[in-house]
Amino acid sequence: MTTILDGKKLSAKILNKLSEEIRKLDKKPSLAVILVGDNPASELYVNLKKKAAEKIGITSTVLTYPQNIDEKTVLDKISELNNDKNVDAILVQLPLPQQINSTNIIQAISPKKDVDGFTPENIGKMSIGVEPYAYPCTPKGILTLLEEYKINLQGKHVVIIGRSNIVGKPLAQMLLNKDATVTICHSATTNLSDITKTADILISAVGKPKIIKKDMIKNNSVIVDVGTSKVDGKIFGDVDFENLSELTSYITPVPGGVGPMTIASLLVNTYELSKRMRKN
Amino acid sequence: MTTILDGKKLSAKILNKLSEEIRKLDKKPSLAVILVGDNPASELYVNLKKKAAEKIGITSTVLTYPQNIDEKTVLDKISELNNDKNVDAILVQLPLPQQINSTNIIQAISPKKDVDGFTPENIGKMSIGVEPYAYPCTPKGILTLLEEYKINLQGKHVVIIGRSNIVGKPLAQMLLNKDATVTICHSATTNLSDITKTADILISAVGKPKIIKKDMIKNNSVIVDVGTSKVDGKIFGDVDFENLSELTSYITPVPGGVGPMTIASLLVNTYELSKRMRKN
Repeated sequence: MTTILDGKKLSAKILNKLSEEIRKLDKKPSLAVILVGDNPASELYVNLKKKAAEKIGITSTVLTYPQNIDEKTVLDKISELNNDKNVDAILVQLPLPQQINSTNIIQAISPKKDVDGFTPENIGKMSIGVEPYAYPCTPKGILTLLEEYKINLQGKHVVIIGRSNIVGKPLAQMLLNKDATVTICHSATTNLSDITKTADILISAVGKPKIIKKDMIKNNSVIVDVGTSKVDGKIFGDVDFENLSELTSYITPVPGGVGPMTIASLLVNTYELSKRMRKN
Repeated sequence: MTTILDGKKLSAKILNKLSEEIRKLDKKPSLAVILVGDNPASELYVNLKKKAAEKIGITSTVLTYPQNIDEKTVLDKISELNNDKNVDAILVQLPLPQQINSTNIIQAISPKKDVDGFTPENIGKMSIGVEPYAYPCTPKGILTLLEEYKINLQGKHVVIIGRSNIVGKPLAQMLLNKDATVTICHSATTNLSDITKTADILISAVGKPKIIKKDMIKNNSVIVDVGTSKVDGKIFGDVDFENLSELTSYITPVPGGVGPMTIASLLVNTYELSKRMRKN
């Protein structure tokens, strides 16, 4: 019998508690979101974030730009937001259109307002074991979920599929800091299933529907599915949930697993950045 | 038949070429080294670095402090060196005495003079795929050595033992950027040899003599030994070289493998920082 890692339920619990904290504040935490272009998935995510923020009393402003906007306009806006005392947290929704260099944009965000924890200063601090201003939201959400279900990480072999700056790479750092043995696989990995079969905990962040089959996992392992794909209007994870969930000890559903945890982490980060900002 | 990865020879070749470049300069690159306390290994390493620097025309200054020095004195000196136009590169020899917080010290170094590539900004840039001012010297030396012998990394499973900020963690990032599949093991890893036996390339950075035995490796794998231990005045690596070298396709010796490559990388970094510094 497997246990479902219920991200929806845990996220609601976290946001409930956070909402009470925010109610006590004179000035609400404020999140600025930059959304460029007309990527439907990005629009959907930004809407989800905005709604979730407002529901718990976080002020959110979405700044939208057309697909063909130049890099400088976005950089100038970030500089303005960095200096705006009414903005506690800045999020740039990725991916950005090709004419814009994403790493230039990310590097322009003040590390103190970097709610995604993606700036070099925050990533680098995390890597050397210094507390960053914020931890990346998806990895933070995954660790919070595993912790809630008391899943031990120490000495466990965690295999991550995907080496993005958003999930795979920061997640690996955070798991190492928790004493896990960590393997990072990706598109160039050969014999992927030889490696995934050795995982005590398998975390897939690929974004292709049902690529993780039951012959790729170890019995009684923990499976965390970060993927989301839409096929014919239906949402799928990376994991062939129906056919393998019975072999696992714990598994996240899609939707209702990692997704809500990412949003909860974003809002916790916004709150924490605002608290730090007001102390100084 | 195994091939020895001859770091001594490659390092000499690199430094020879570098020495010619430096001869053309009006003003020599300059390296400032901070050495705290009386750790004999640290004194030895600093001496090796200083000698190697001077041999190829890099000016090096060693600033020594007693074991009981306070953190502020070192921080003040770093701030002075950051602002000194005659200093291109700053190195703080690790480890530092207990009363000094190493990460505070490292964070104080200007990223532009951070010859070890250890500051959060440089580590973070490397992680997100932006060129840092300098790459950490030991990982850079290892990659340069593997490249010289045309050892393919793409899709290979590289297992690193050790998760230090100096070797394991930055090395993992650099290998990922080269399309290797990367596993990081460490003191909390269970069933270490189950994992090391799956490595196409095994890199050990533990610092305990001869802990990597022949039953822990895959036949025809590549073995890189970063460890150095002194037992009864004799230098040993992590690897039981005598008993397993015949099973490998390539192997580094200790001494004469990674050690000289680290020094070569340090001096290449010093030269490159000085070039960039003078351009601006």
